Amino acid sequence: MDAQAFAAARTAVPTSPAAGSTALLTDRYELTMLQAALRSGAAHRHSVFEVFTRRLPDGRRYGVLAGTGRVLDAVENFRFETAQLDWLADQRVVDEPTLRWLADYRFRGDIHGYPEGEVYFPGSPLLTVEGSFAEAVILETVILSILNFDSAIAAAASRMTAAAGTRPCIEMGARRAHESAAVAAARAAYIAGFAATSDLQAGFLHGIPTTGTAAHAFTLLHDSERDAFTAQLDSMGTGTTLLVDTFDLAEAVRTAVEVAGPELGAVRIDSGDLTLLAHRVRRQLDELGAHKTRIIVTSDLDEYAIAALAAAPVDGYGVGTSLVTGSGHPTCAMVYKLVARAASTEPGAALVPVAKRSAGAKSSVGGRKWAARRPDAEGVAEAEVVGTGPLPAQLAPHALQVPLVRGGEVVGREPLSAARERHQRARAALPLSATQLSKGEPVLATELRLA
Amino acid sequence: MDAQAFAAARTAVPTSPAAGSTALLTDRYELTMLQAALRSGAAHRHSVFEVFTRRLPDGRRYGVLAGTGRVLDAVENFRFETAQLDWLADQRVVDEPTLRWLADYRFRGDIHGYPEGEVYFPGSPLLTVEGSFAEAVILETVILSILNFDSAIAAAASRMTAAAGTRPCIEMGARRAHESAAVAAARAAYIAGFAATSDLQAGFLHGIPTTGTAAHAFTLLHDSERDAFTAQLDSMGTGTTLLVDTFDLAEAVRTAVEVAGPELGAVRIDSGDLTLLAHRVRRQLDELGAHKTRIIVTSDLDEYAIAALAAAPVDGYGVGTSLVTGSGHPTCAMVYKLVARAASTEPGAALVPVAKRSAGAKSSVGGRKWAARRPDAEGVAEAEVVGTGPLPAQLAPHALQVPLVRGGEVVGREPLSAARERHQRARAALPLSATQLSKGEPVLATELRLA
Repeated sequence: MDAQAFAAARTAVPTSPAAGSTALLTDRYELTMLQAALRSGAAHRHSVFEVFTRRLPDGRRYGVLAGTGRVLDAVENFRFETAQLDWLADQRVVDEPTLRWLADYRFRGDIHGYPEGEVYFPGSPLLTVEGSFAEAVILETVILSILNFDSAIAAAASRMTAAAGTRPCIEMGARRAHESAAVAAARAAYIAGFAATSDLQAGFLHGIPTTGTAAHAFTLLHDSERDAFTAQLDSMGTGTTLLVDTFDLAEAVRTAVEVAGPELGAVRIDSGDLTLLAHRVRRQLDELGAHKTRIIVTSDLDEYAIAALAAAPVDGYGVGTSLVTGSGHPTCAMVYKLVARAASTEPGAALVPVAKRSAGAKSSVGGRKWAARRPDAEGVAEAEVVGTGPLPAQLAPHALQVPLVRGGEVVGREPLSAARERHQRARAALPLSATQLSKGEPVLATELRLA
Repeated sequence: MDAQAFAAARTAVPTSPAAGSTALLTDRYELTMLQAALRSGAAHRHSVFEVFTRRLPDGRRYGVLAGTGRVLDAVENFRFETAQLDWLADQRVVDEPTLRWLADYRFRGDIHGYPEGEVYFPGSPLLTVEGSFAEAVILETVILSILNFDSAIAAAASRMTAAAGTRPCIEMGARRAHESAAVAAARAAYIAGFAATSDLQAGFLHGIPTTGTAAHAFTLLHDSERDAFTAQLDSMGTGTTLLVDTFDLAEAVRTAVEVAGPELGAVRIDSGDLTLLAHRVRRQLDELGAHKTRIIVTSDLDEYAIAALAAAPVDGYGVGTSLVTGSGHPTCAMVYKLVARAASTEPGAALVPVAKRSAGAKSSVGGRKWAARRPDAEGVAEAEVVGTGPLPAQLAPHALQVPLVRGGEVVGREPLSAARERHQRARAALPLSATQLSKGEPVLATELRLA
């Protein structure tokens, strides 16, 4: 069974309710609004909420949507269990009628959105959640948590894989992120083109390939570097990766090839001037006849360091801190805004566009949006078109949103590989300047067409 | 039952094994090292690992340790379940003898460390994990994940609460962090002096006070701001906080006091020039006789914005993005290093200090460390003293490490309030310049005393 099949088989097993419930990953104000709206009656007005961002992080040229698959799981598992209801009652977070409503809660509305792995721009309607105000408002926090984090990681990862070209990037940042965030980071990085992760839980839950051999501690544990290398080769075979910078690099490389022979799989360098050292180690490996032994580098890499190593004889990049912290932008600025709601709770009541309109940068555009990415004659994307009213027929082939949930049933689940392939295609269809690492404007302008 | 008692009662209920197991929150190389070391026999050498950081984030004057309590839970729950072992076998991560060893695994060694909430400096031995190489090496990733994330949040939170003085800070960042990281962030912020969180799961799991009333969506849902305010007051009473910046601020404040009367609890401003608006709203509230109505501000605050608002008539700060992203430093640089190991597996074999010694900044100091914070004659801390060998008698009263795990049994569990109080004391004992927000050197130098 391959890793993805194994993960798929396992997710079919129901998780324990307490483990799976996402219902309290929620800001208190959502439940107090719910209570007040249930009392005023407005809770039952049909409502449309949109997830979008007003801006990309400073200088970034595109965003990458990740987390949609996790959002679908979170919506399905958004059920209030007895222990949670007891706690809400004990703490007097909400009143009895609200507790009864929550006990029966499951989302029965519709969700459309950009599919996972897609790129995006300011104003792109990334997720549209539609249902009663009550059922949609309480999903705000968990949806934003997932999309803001996962997309921040995917955006950084996409810059790194673009800079790495055909060389593989390996995600190794678990130790620099919250232990569960690390798993989501590995997933987002895989969508954005990373080849593997060090994080076993990411392999277990999501079927992502895992990799890793040894740390400095393993060398220090043994009486000599030679003993350590011998022990590792005995256990893992000649194809393994030996870590060669615990003591003296040149001596370690010599010992490694002596002990493993010229068929040694790879060496890893984890400190120092990587460009210089990669050249030196490559020369030494070649002199020792280990022409196929690869060189993996892993010390505080980010997209700039990866790009700087393009001309060095490096065969793979292990990336940690920078990846799991979004390379300077550890979150996105996505918001979840009510953009339209029915004029009353009567069936068929007209939808009224709504928007905050106080002074300042936080105003938004009312009305349910569609989105399409218009290509030029050569098929290169030239604009992100976002509008209200009916989608113009000539843009229909380029529409970006897909159905994700219909009447409470998830219809948009897909294997991770689909999101990974989509990201490759979507990035490749952008103007070439998209993958320039220098700061710039979003590579596509967002054209707003209001009905 | 108060919130903390409720949380304590609930944690006594055993969680489902699948939910609780932390065993795969592990980098693959830990298990491959384990396999190779089991085979070479070195796995059974007695070993000492230390968690420390070589530097604080650029310009920060002290670090704040958080996550220790979560580490103790993670170590207790580090057990390999059948589904996990099956997956490791299926994916051929490790061989049969290693799987059998993992199936029986529980940590049986000792852990000492700085208690949670304590401040720290470069080189402080924050956690010392002692046992066989095998049992200690596989805890690396989960321990670092927890401490690196939680401490990054606590450090930012501590700067914010210092800048806020006696005004309460409220944690509202869940939507800007991974959904589980958000809960840990609320916990870390509470340790560093935050008064409350918006995150219900943080209340449910950790007994942290929760707070929150309404978002702009609630106003937009209703036919008018007046209807929305009336609905909220009907549901939550006069003591509630009304959000007054959806449309026109002055009109909203007038409406709020008209509808609620002068006993209105608070108003919240979430956009615009907060200093200017706070003065304006305070004047207006006072003119309307609402002298006791508080003003809460919540728009993209960080420690600098909080400090800048010190002279404005603000009664509380809601902090989101900046807090949960560590205010520019979303992780710490803590590492988990083998610092000593037995010369052999014979009982009583001598401990040999070990350290990486290749060129570059990643070298470290071998040997098990003690630590003490030396006060001056006035009781103000003047140095972080870290050493090997026996702890000097005159420093014994100022020793920083406490026992956390003895022979595999957790002995260092404490209520969150203890960590919160400790942080207040520890920060207050630092030189005054500790809480300056401008960039500077660590406020205490670390003195190294090698035996």
